[in-house]
Amino acid sequence: MGVIVQKYGGTSVADSQKIKNVAKRITQSHKDGNSVVVVVSAMGGSTDQLIKLAHEISDKPPERELDMLLSTGEQVSIALLAMAVSKLGFHAISLTGNQVGIITDGFYSNARIKSINNDRILSELDQGKIVILAGFQGITIDDEITTLGRGASDTTAVAVAASLNADRCEIYTDVDGVYTSDPRVVKGARKLDQITYDEMLEMAGLGTKVLHSRCVELAKKFEVPLSVRSSFHKGEGTIIVKESKIMEEVVVSGVTSDKDQAKVSLIGLPDTPGMAAEIFQALADASINIDMIIQNASQDGTADLSFTTAEKDLDKTVEIVSRIKEKVGFNSVNGDFNIAKVSVIGIGMKSHVGIASKTFRVLADAGINIQMISTSEIKISCVIKEDQTENAVQVIHDVFELGHVDNKVSN
Amino acid sequence: MGVIVQKYGGTSVADSQKIKNVAKRITQSHKDGNSVVVVVSAMGGSTDQLIKLAHEISDKPPERELDMLLSTGEQVSIALLAMAVSKLGFHAISLTGNQVGIITDGFYSNARIKSINNDRILSELDQGKIVILAGFQGITIDDEITTLGRGASDTTAVAVAASLNADRCEIYTDVDGVYTSDPRVVKGARKLDQITYDEMLEMAGLGTKVLHSRCVELAKKFEVPLSVRSSFHKGEGTIIVKESKIMEEVVVSGVTSDKDQAKVSLIGLPDTPGMAAEIFQALADASINIDMIIQNASQDGTADLSFTTAEKDLDKTVEIVSRIKEKVGFNSVNGDFNIAKVSVIGIGMKSHVGIASKTFRVLADAGINIQMISTSEIKISCVIKEDQTENAVQVIHDVFELGHVDNKVSN
Repeated sequence: MGVIVQKYGGTSVADSQKIKNVAKRITQSHKDGNSVVVVVSAMGGSTDQLIKLAHEISDKPPERELDMLLSTGEQVSIALLAMAVSKLGFHAISLTGNQVGIITDGFYSNARIKSINNDRILSELDQGKIVILAGFQGITIDDEITTLGRGASDTTAVAVAASLNADRCEIYTDVDGVYTSDPRVVKGARKLDQITYDEMLEMAGLGTKVLHSRCVELAKKFEVPLSVRSSFHKGEGTIIVKESKIMEEVVVSGVTSDKDQAKVSLIGLPDTPGMAAEIFQALADASINIDMIIQNASQDGTADLSFTTAEKDLDKTVEIVSRIKEKVGFNSVNGDFNIAKVSVIGIGMKSHVGIASKTFRVLADAGINIQMISTSEIKISCVIKEDQTENAVQVIHDVFELGHVDNKVSN
Repeated sequence: MGVIVQKYGGTSVADSQKIKNVAKRITQSHKDGNSVVVVVSAMGGSTDQLIKLAHEISDKPPERELDMLLSTGEQVSIALLAMAVSKLGFHAISLTGNQVGIITDGFYSNARIKSINNDRILSELDQGKIVILAGFQGITIDDEITTLGRGASDTTAVAVAASLNADRCEIYTDVDGVYTSDPRVVKGARKLDQITYDEMLEMAGLGTKVLHSRCVELAKKFEVPLSVRSSFHKGEGTIIVKESKIMEEVVVSGVTSDKDQAKVSLIGLPDTPGMAAEIFQALADASINIDMIIQNASQDGTADLSFTTAEKDLDKTVEIVSRIKEKVGFNSVNGDFNIAKVSVIGIGMKSHVGIASKTFRVLADAGINIQMISTSEIKISCVIKEDQTENAVQVIHDVFELGHVDNKVSN
């Protein structure tokens, strides 16, 4: 008998009827002979309601208290789902992050899982129960409630699957799989049957809301067999696999965009060693993730440094950077919300040349200016003006013929 | 520096503005030089919403899951209140029942506090923080979340006050004190400046919603100085004291009613020893509280047994009693929702005769039939038809002149 971890997002449990539907799916898996562990997000919209309430009280609520508040959302949905499963005549038990023993570090609102204690889960499974876990939350060794960041219930699911050495981890969501690009925006976007961890990782990191990137990282690290499928209708969805398992290699798998990005530019930085380290250490200490970085030396011995970060972290980033302005000795700092990142992703890129030039050319032809570029073996990202995002994604999607199953690149 | 425990009920924290007002009161006590521990209920209406959600999913949700669900209500309010206090520039920390270590037994939905661990509270107070605790909830030694029953945040407050040996425990609510009877129903009802634990206990047990009876029991047991006052306006409220502290003794303190009662009658019980014990043991095993009990032996060697219980427990009670019908050997069981209990309370009764007869006479004069009677040293309770409740309370209130401060009884 295998262990299956299923994760249901907020839209899948948004009301009591949807919760009943999820209960049916879960019990079906149980009837099929599996040991089923379910990870649930807060009911759709409830987290936003709680945040709104918090902001009615304080424009800057303490992060510890915000985690205390937000973690209730999942506690509500696990209890309701356990009730729905029981109502169908099956034994279910809901467990909070604390009860499972999902131990995290102490970074409120963005904590990382350090360990998971399987004892309670295994003991409940042994008793034939369907185990329903709160996603998104954990607890520090000092008993403080933490949350893992928006959308991190995916991460909980994969971490639990890895910890239990589960046969597979199924992420149920409101889309029916991973697409070559956002089908609501891009004409001809096509669902992928399979994709590699690495490609998925890039997509997740780049604003494709289907999977949380930390979840994919974890899945890759522990080789958790992962699939993404719709919680509303049947269908195989997309399987996320190791590279070697992909039989027919495609060059470009998808094109994604991320508007929740901001650009920070430091002007007139002394062009001496250690300056960048100083800045990024200060940001790392504050748990601010930096993405793309560009530094240009100018002729007067100073340099300009630009980097991107999440839009929500822009104020904090500018504040922290300003604090070390004297010490580092630059002239000024600018923050820019009005940018987006557009990325082309494909495991096949590694062995093909010309993907980058083709991307740059098609953007230029569309009159889109590229502000920053970063590349990896399987990704090319360009920072552009935010209002040009949809157009950029469409022209790239078209030029690589991603709407066709047998797309190949001709340089 | 003294420790003060303040408790705020659901109506006091019903929205963000009210939470901000409570935060002001709390910080004022802190500024006055006190160590302040606050116990909070769920935001007004939120518990009912959660119950509604549960019942959309199951007509009989498992009690463990119901407690898992309901305990989120207080977690929301403590987090928001801590944010509001922080916003005013004070250090606050919210703690769940689990974090405090409020250890209870395992009776879901009606658990009893077994012990409270003060370490965390004291350590936070030592750091100058205002400590905000979730009322109503606890945790078993097996890490299961329990709730203490509706309105039991009062109990949490007194238990914490007793445990901390607090200087006083202030219960803030939506009324400005304890009245001789419900002022919304009874003409001439008067606020009492003080009342004894015993009188308050009877009142609380009899449907006066001002204080939860377990809270008063605990306060009496540990002699916790308790007061009830309005969270919306100033004023001294009512102080609950030991008997000896009441200088001028009044005979009757109040008259109360409780419509949330049901009567169960067993007909044709064999009149042999041990039958009643058998029945009430079965009910006790199911944690069903029984209040008044009457048994009448009839001439054919059988007896009729009637007792009252909470309306919500009627179905379960009838079910349990029916289960042992064969074993005990009675003919039939009837449940009756349409009854109420009216009670006259007064510490002075002990040394005065004629209170009972005066009560029975005034009810008879008003055409109200008494179905059951029970008396104690400081209380006389009568079970009557539910639709006669208001009238019964008013005529008793009038006959003992409870609207006047210097009411005395003349037999």
